[in-house]
Amino acid sequence: MDVTAEDGTARTGTVHTARGSYPVPTFMPVGTKGAVKALDSADLDTLGADVVLANTYHLMLRPGADVVAALGGLHRFTGWEGHTLTDSGGFQVHSLGPAVDDDGVTFTSVYDGLRIRLTPESAVEAQGLIGADIQMVLDVCASLPAEPAALRVAVDRTASWAARARIHHNQFEGRPEHQALFGIVQGGTDPDLRQESARRTVEVGFDGYGIGGLSVGEPRSAMLEALAATVPELPVGLPRYLMGVGDPIGMLEAVALGVDQFDCVAPTRMARHGTILTTEGRINLRNSVHVRDDSPLDARCGCSTCARWSRGYLRHLLSVREPTAWRLLSIHNLAQLLHLMQRARTAIAEQRLSGLRAEVAAVW
Amino acid sequence: MDVTAEDGTARTGTVHTARGSYPVPTFMPVGTKGAVKALDSADLDTLGADVVLANTYHLMLRPGADVVAALGGLHRFTGWEGHTLTDSGGFQVHSLGPAVDDDGVTFTSVYDGLRIRLTPESAVEAQGLIGADIQMVLDVCASLPAEPAALRVAVDRTASWAARARIHHNQFEGRPEHQALFGIVQGGTDPDLRQESARRTVEVGFDGYGIGGLSVGEPRSAMLEALAATVPELPVGLPRYLMGVGDPIGMLEAVALGVDQFDCVAPTRMARHGTILTTEGRINLRNSVHVRDDSPLDARCGCSTCARWSRGYLRHLLSVREPTAWRLLSIHNLAQLLHLMQRARTAIAEQRLSGLRAEVAAVW
Repeated sequence: MDVTAEDGTARTGTVHTARGSYPVPTFMPVGTKGAVKALDSADLDTLGADVVLANTYHLMLRPGADVVAALGGLHRFTGWEGHTLTDSGGFQVHSLGPAVDDDGVTFTSVYDGLRIRLTPESAVEAQGLIGADIQMVLDVCASLPAEPAALRVAVDRTASWAARARIHHNQFEGRPEHQALFGIVQGGTDPDLRQESARRTVEVGFDGYGIGGLSVGEPRSAMLEALAATVPELPVGLPRYLMGVGDPIGMLEAVALGVDQFDCVAPTRMARHGTILTTEGRINLRNSVHVRDDSPLDARCGCSTCARWSRGYLRHLLSVREPTAWRLLSIHNLAQLLHLMQRARTAIAEQRLSGLRAEVAAVW
Repeated sequence: MDVTAEDGTARTGTVHTARGSYPVPTFMPVGTKGAVKALDSADLDTLGADVVLANTYHLMLRPGADVVAALGGLHRFTGWEGHTLTDSGGFQVHSLGPAVDDDGVTFTSVYDGLRIRLTPESAVEAQGLIGADIQMVLDVCASLPAEPAALRVAVDRTASWAARARIHHNQFEGRPEHQALFGIVQGGTDPDLRQESARRTVEVGFDGYGIGGLSVGEPRSAMLEALAATVPELPVGLPRYLMGVGDPIGMLEAVALGVDQFDCVAPTRMARHGTILTTEGRINLRNSVHVRDDSPLDARCGCSTCARWSRGYLRHLLSVREPTAWRLLSIHNLAQLLHLMQRARTAIAEQRLSGLRAEVAAVW
């Protein structure tokens, strides 16, 4: 990536890929099963999203990585010509409490109860077939709080699996030729382990670095401490991706520490439950105060939802469970986060990120 | 309305309203609770819909006709600048098996179990507040097959309620100034009763005429016989609306008899269940033959769904229950019916409706 401006440890710039380039910092909407829930890829065009995630765990089970490949790969499958990234499936698998051994993980499919085996190599192959622009290595994510011994095993396995994934990605011919591979740093909230994990991951050598296992319930200060220990170990010229963070403050704090990209399902999940992000803070659209409110969700928002529909209408659709509400509210919440990252890029370029952080902190 | 061309008893032309005009024959998508399920009003713009329905029964209960009025009326509420029509709530109410007396109906709200009273006058007021371009009188819809005595009572009450609605609509100030009021013809499948009901409704005098109580399970031949008895009694210069019909063959047969407009929830409901209308007939998208099918739903369809997504992708989204599928498939099925009506208009203008009927009948 080209770093075009820095503001303290924060930076802005452009990540280059075989597909083209995308600006950072950026928020990446999550299309879990091949679509951001209730949205389509034309909506993502309109929103101006740069990178969209898909979940390997779900796609390898339904419709199957081979089916995605047969249908032309993730971009053609979803009709999305922007950038794509697939996670390794590791996070979903670990949340199911699978059997983990040195070689890989064994878990039960939520779809049909079949026992499935995932290894660093098979995760590379599934993601190779799915064919996103960027794939992530299979990592081991310890649940926090974790015993030191558990964290140690997670860090060691993550490092060993990273090396195996790197080798297999180089060899596997069933992937797009220029597909990028990102490593993942683990280590819980222990700064020393984070530093060690970062060093060992960088030693393997990747096209970018995920920072995993954070924002899983620990205090924000612990997350930021772990981040502060990790980021200086990562190469300046490669993107840094903090996995699973999507709240405005958390993102800006991480941007300040040098993080470039984020993903999170929370903004769209919150939208479907009526929790709406605005430039003046969070509102609960289910609150009856909005019943006769003809104003938009956020008068300062430029999204297609705010241009056309009122709080009163959207609240009505939400309360009678119309799927239309899920889509229109998700579009709005995503627009808020995409716009926040745009503001962060400008603020960094103009050396005023701390002003933006203060402004956002004042309303959240 | 201006009738611009006739082909046998079929006609095409333009219906004029205070809002503007719309071409007929036309299919009207149904936005039951203020949105066509899973769609928004921008989707209806893209589809080129002319008239959109909303259901008074649902809107009067949630969010309440007064709330729709407070939010600027149905057009502003839904963000839709095309034509709108509200049914009276009669059909939904009758399907609940309410207590019907000469003065009105009493039913139980599906939302909270409250007892609700609906009369010809209160239906006018609810629809006046909701503020569509066209409102429908409250009618009595006998379930078919019906005893002659039940049909007779339904026809008599419908006529009496039509007169009361006409008077109250003239007086009620809480409605848009130029809101149109359509009467409704009943009479089951008895041609004589249909003819009588049509005459008595026309005697009251309306801006257009609904034909209700058909397509409720009777054989198509019985429906067409009832229609053939009804239509000649209706004024040539006013629109004729066959309520609840939305299958390609049924619409074309009714168009041939002189019907101008249709509504039906079936096309969008079928879409959500994977039954897809195409120019080559119906397909079941859940069928596994479509898993790896990279072709569009219908190669001859001009809709936004067919332009971008494959059968394989849409089948995947449907089978993992993504709301995105409901929207994209509904858009397609509506596009098919809107396009069919466009073809019918052209065919009538060119005196070749029977050719179109034969063409469509060959694939259905």
